[in-house]
Amino acid sequence: MLGSTHGTFTTDLRARVVACGESPHTVVHGTATDGDLDVSGRPLYAPVPDLDRFFRPASVAVVGASDGDGRANTGITRQLVDWAERVGARIHPVHPTRESVFGLRCVPSVGELPEQVDLAVLLVGDPLPVIEELAQAKVKFAVAFASGYAETGEQGAAAQRRLAAAAERSGLRLLGPNTNLNAFEKFRDDLDGPAIALITQSGHQGRPVFTMQELGVRLSHWAPTGNEADLETADFISYFAERPEVGAIACYVEGLKDGRSFLLAADRAARRGVPVVAVKVGRTETGARMAASHTGKLTGADQVVDAAMRQFGVIRVDGLDELQDTSALLARARRPVAEGVVVYSISGGTGAHFSDLATAAGLRLPRLSEAKQAELHEWIPPYLSVANPVDNGGHPVGDWRGRKIIDAILADPAVGVLICPITGPFPPMSDKLAQDLVDAAEATDKLVCVVWGSPVGTEAAYRETLLGSSRVATFRTFANCIRAVSAYLDHHRFRAGYRSPFDDAPRTSSPSFRKAQALMRPGKQLSEHAAKQLLRAYGIRVPREQLVTSAAAAVRAAGLVGYPVVMKASGTQLAHKTELGLVKVGLTSASQVRDAYRELTDIARYEGVDLDGILVCQMVERGVEMVVGVTHDALFGATVTVGLGGVLVEVLHDAAVRVPPFGEGQARAMLGELRGRALLDGVRGGPPVDVDALVEVVLRVERMALELGDELSELDINPLMVLPRGQGAVALDALAVCR
Amino acid sequence: MLGSTHGTFTTDLRARVVACGESPHTVVHGTATDGDLDVSGRPLYAPVPDLDRFFRPASVAVVGASDGDGRANTGITRQLVDWAERVGARIHPVHPTRESVFGLRCVPSVGELPEQVDLAVLLVGDPLPVIEELAQAKVKFAVAFASGYAETGEQGAAAQRRLAAAAERSGLRLLGPNTNLNAFEKFRDDLDGPAIALITQSGHQGRPVFTMQELGVRLSHWAPTGNEADLETADFISYFAERPEVGAIACYVEGLKDGRSFLLAADRAARRGVPVVAVKVGRTETGARMAASHTGKLTGADQVVDAAMRQFGVIRVDGLDELQDTSALLARARRPVAEGVVVYSISGGTGAHFSDLATAAGLRLPRLSEAKQAELHEWIPPYLSVANPVDNGGHPVGDWRGRKIIDAILADPAVGVLICPITGPFPPMSDKLAQDLVDAAEATDKLVCVVWGSPVGTEAAYRETLLGSSRVATFRTFANCIRAVSAYLDHHRFRAGYRSPFDDAPRTSSPSFRKAQALMRPGKQLSEHAAKQLLRAYGIRVPREQLVTSAAAAVRAAGLVGYPVVMKASGTQLAHKTELGLVKVGLTSASQVRDAYRELTDIARYEGVDLDGILVCQMVERGVEMVVGVTHDALFGATVTVGLGGVLVEVLHDAAVRVPPFGEGQARAMLGELRGRALLDGVRGGPPVDVDALVEVVLRVERMALELGDELSELDINPLMVLPRGQGAVALDALAVCR
Repeated sequence: MLGSTHGTFTTDLRARVVACGESPHTVVHGTATDGDLDVSGRPLYAPVPDLDRFFRPASVAVVGASDGDGRANTGITRQLVDWAERVGARIHPVHPTRESVFGLRCVPSVGELPEQVDLAVLLVGDPLPVIEELAQAKVKFAVAFASGYAETGEQGAAAQRRLAAAAERSGLRLLGPNTNLNAFEKFRDDLDGPAIALITQSGHQGRPVFTMQELGVRLSHWAPTGNEADLETADFISYFAERPEVGAIACYVEGLKDGRSFLLAADRAARRGVPVVAVKVGRTETGARMAASHTGKLTGADQVVDAAMRQFGVIRVDGLDELQDTSALLARARRPVAEGVVVYSISGGTGAHFSDLATAAGLRLPRLSEAKQAELHEWIPPYLSVANPVDNGGHPVGDWRGRKIIDAILADPAVGVLICPITGPFPPMSDKLAQDLVDAAEATDKLVCVVWGSPVGTEAAYRETLLGSSRVATFRTFANCIRAVSAYLDHHRFRAGYRSPFDDAPRTSSPSFRKAQALMRPGKQLSEHAAKQLLRAYGIRVPREQLVTSAAAAVRAAGLVGYPVVMKASGTQLAHKTELGLVKVGLTSASQVRDAYRELTDIARYEGVDLDGILVCQMVERGVEMVVGVTHDALFGATVTVGLGGVLVEVLHDAAVRVPPFGEGQARAMLGELRGRALLDGVRGGPPVDVDALVEVVLRVERMALELGDELSELDINPLMVLPRGQGAVALDALAVCR
Repeated sequence: MLGSTHGTFTTDLRARVVACGESPHTVVHGTATDGDLDVSGRPLYAPVPDLDRFFRPASVAVVGASDGDGRANTGITRQLVDWAERVGARIHPVHPTRESVFGLRCVPSVGELPEQVDLAVLLVGDPLPVIEELAQAKVKFAVAFASGYAETGEQGAAAQRRLAAAAERSGLRLLGPNTNLNAFEKFRDDLDGPAIALITQSGHQGRPVFTMQELGVRLSHWAPTGNEADLETADFISYFAERPEVGAIACYVEGLKDGRSFLLAADRAARRGVPVVAVKVGRTETGARMAASHTGKLTGADQVVDAAMRQFGVIRVDGLDELQDTSALLARARRPVAEGVVVYSISGGTGAHFSDLATAAGLRLPRLSEAKQAELHEWIPPYLSVANPVDNGGHPVGDWRGRKIIDAILADPAVGVLICPITGPFPPMSDKLAQDLVDAAEATDKLVCVVWGSPVGTEAAYRETLLGSSRVATFRTFANCIRAVSAYLDHHRFRAGYRSPFDDAPRTSSPSFRKAQALMRPGKQLSEHAAKQLLRAYGIRVPREQLVTSAAAAVRAAGLVGYPVVMKASGTQLAHKTELGLVKVGLTSASQVRDAYRELTDIARYEGVDLDGILVCQMVERGVEMVVGVTHDALFGATVTVGLGGVLVEVLHDAAVRVPPFGEGQARAMLGELRGRALLDGVRGGPPVDVDALVEVVLRVERMALELGDELSELDINPLMVLPRGQGAVALDALAVCR
């Protein structure tokens, strides 16, 4: 529980609940109304675009259609014509001079279309002039193929902005530019069950997930978003999150168009319980730069992207293979009935190896009960270990005992997941085992996974038996299985505990805000004293202190704050006070205070430092030094950082970050991410520190980020001294820079 | 360069070179002669067993042969008979009662074999009585199938020791028990080029690597070592390292029989330049325990295993898929002519994504020269980036330009590796690209890698074109490609700089050793003063200090060591001195020393601590606190640890470990592994510390570990104060426990 000694805005923090996750769909370009903005002026709710007619248009105009030999547009036109035939849509080629294309009658311009079409595919070099015509013809959606926009530099970016503006004015929704027809590929329609919906900023990068249909995994949609002048990844996430056939959303993201809209979309998916699995390029600066140049988007700091995704339950993976395997599992697997994982194998070696890697990855492999083990030993020789992993030694697999063992494991209430790694094909063992697993999976709600370890992958047991089952999740590597099962359990844990931070985000400013505003000095760095006043305004404790401008006043101040005291030079441009000798600690008498005053002012004069005075501060007992601050991210705006102070933050950069709004749970999770976390529990026999007070400071700083974020370019409490449990936390020094 | 202020054993450290890597093969059970032992009594050289006749026996006795229906031995006998027919070996079934087995005449006992056989396969429940008979019949090798040995507990372990002893007495080499016939599987003999030799402690776990033959990867041997009563993983590594057809050794290891023999085998492979790739179970304690129970072996601390492997260039991987991909690449790829990696793709997205992950994994992707870029732009449109990654935009792949581009990249002297990720099959692009890459790979010495990203894997471009080439390394995931290419470049870098530490290992004890021995107190913990004397004996600097037993003596001592002084209680059972208040620092006068003496002895009396006196020590200037020590590992014996002191070692366990013998390069590499490494370079404007002095201390502690390792159960210098560059390092406190 949080303490509430400084509860200036406690009631605001527990803000009103907005049931936006449940509101009826709003169509296109919705700007949130005033009531839907948080205190920073950012939307708390993103409308869901209605993209039904985009993905399933009844009629399509192809502007720039061609059937001439050797022209790029010919292939695209043919693909559309074939697709329309398959799904029963009407195609209207548009070309200024041609009579017909592929036997379909052409119209010379968009204005002369014979009906109001749902979608226009723009194969022209410059789609800009066409947009207005389309709007007049009341076309709902357009796809622009043309490249040469933001991905080529500033000039292209300007052209893209013009295109986006035209789309916004017109009211139609635009996909692209720099995109393609992946949305209108040939999808398998013979597969049942929850599907993957795919969003990619590059067609090639979506191909492996799309191809999984050949392995029996259902895909419902593919949105190739290209440069995202208008429709962006977030729009598709929101839309897919509301589609009943979508079991998971798989994304390949190079850059995000807007941080907030991504978070709002992820929030919608989280409320709906639809998992989002994403590759996000930009682990390295090189990668981020290359990705930006490929689609011309913002990148932001990778650590911030990573944190933001975790806050909203987006499962970030690195490889396209992980994207495939994790999204396929999450789309199809039912909610876990228990979190325990049992590893079952025909080899003690395989079981030990898999369990070692699974345990290292954080999966929990409970020891099976003695009763369950005794049951398993009815069919498995007594010298084999069946505690978990369960080693059957091979032979029982070949006969009636095989299925009995699997069923007995699945019947254990502690077991939610059974994983069977089969390292090599040796019929009849492996084939019989695969069939038993498929049969058992049909008869249970629990998750059954198989790792088919043969690198060949043409074996019938794999291709037909295992891939033929939608109830068994089949993997090719231990690592991908472990990654996907971890994501599956994490997702359901996340989902069960999810409460949208947007529901609790403050909409109006706190009383603190008015006090704070009076202290802000646009474009300036505040003095230490002023920065501390700012913290005080938000209820963050600072030492008792007085700013003095004479030795006599210093002595009086020392008497008021109480000996021993610390004295520090204070000025608006002051940094590295300790290194310059501008801090004196442990002063216990009036004469020491007088000497210190003289010495500090002398040094300042010598160093040419402008002072607004000398701070006489209360000495604070020793605790653990932390750093708490606000920094700006290009993509997400003001973010909150907490780290371990001193050598840990300087040498190891041991800090965690979050994007507001977030609640107490995330503030505590931040501390859990610190490598030096154990310091908070007390080391060298020291007492545990006041973690609740630290969490409260983090939440108050978050409030500052929300309310002052745009006016405050940097806030750094360093150190925040966190005292032993029950004694609070005190900001010993602070740096604040106004915009 | 190391300083040599305390060069007591400098000449010994630069010890004689023993050209054992080049000595002629010695056959079986060789105990190293006295000249081949290091100062700790451990061998410096392991003989290479001659296993030619094991893998290619001309004649085989099958003891317990059977052709009766439904008997386990029948299947094994048949496999051997088939195998013998294929390779032209003679099979002699041995059975007390049968006349013949599968039409081959039986003999009733080993004594009646018609010829001296190379190998006996023991299918009997208890092989022990047969061993002596086999030895009399001069059989060279035996394979014991029986299980129920060390894997079942202490009783089984005792039976295994009896079996091992019998084998050792007899002079034959035994494989197993608890093993199988994987060595006599059906190997493809139609594949050329360097092969993988496989060693596994579990048959199932070797199956995926074995199966790679179906993908065109040559395998020359498979040693399923089972419980390793006699022949162990190390023997096979040594043997394979000397075989000309072996390009890489792939191992699946659950536990090591003996740390030293493993290191000597790895050293042989390193000298020979043969890469060893290994899965070693035991990342977690759970995994280690399970693996130990599976084959009944020692485990040792995983961090030590990891370090030992790195010291000798063994490439540790986690998954069997990585074992396959990495060993296949290392077996077949030629030595790199440059370290630069170029990523080439038909999509900017794919290039950015792959490059991001590759850069994050530490691969170096040099920017191609302006001239090279201009050349590539002859074939690639100007708006695409060709700096690296090279994005061809797709179209040039389909025609004559495709091959030109690949050749131009490969011709760049900065480029050693070309990687082409193909995320999806879209003939004609992907098929043509695959063929061009295969053709180009034939014409270059450089490494060409393809990642075939389609999850289907039945495409002709993959199965026929890519897998049909032994010059293109084909992967299925970005991660495995990046892992393998990193291992490839690391291996060749390691190999080029490798110098065996066994060549330089000391064989005779240093003068320090005699001084040290006088200080050892078997079974006791030494006092701080005695422990520091031990360090001094090995030339490690300690503060000037005196042990005193009166206040007057303390004042005299302070005068001698020089003010200010530190005073500490000293006793043989003393720990946590600081917490108990038994340390006084910064004493500047005789009266302070006198007071401190009284206070320390009072506290000791109050706490009931036995003192041997009070240490009056020189105050040492501030530097960076490190920890250097010796600890014992169950598998590798005395190991040397170095870590950052204070909060870093306590909270983050930021320490590196090495197994002696190792040289200066490894000592420096240890420092590089520390997360807080930057502290040594100076932080907060501090000066860089004396890293050379720190390295010298690590090497002196290594010498202590080698010479005193068996008598010293623990040594802990904490802190070692490392002073600014040029000023050395001083052991401020030390703990030493004798065995």
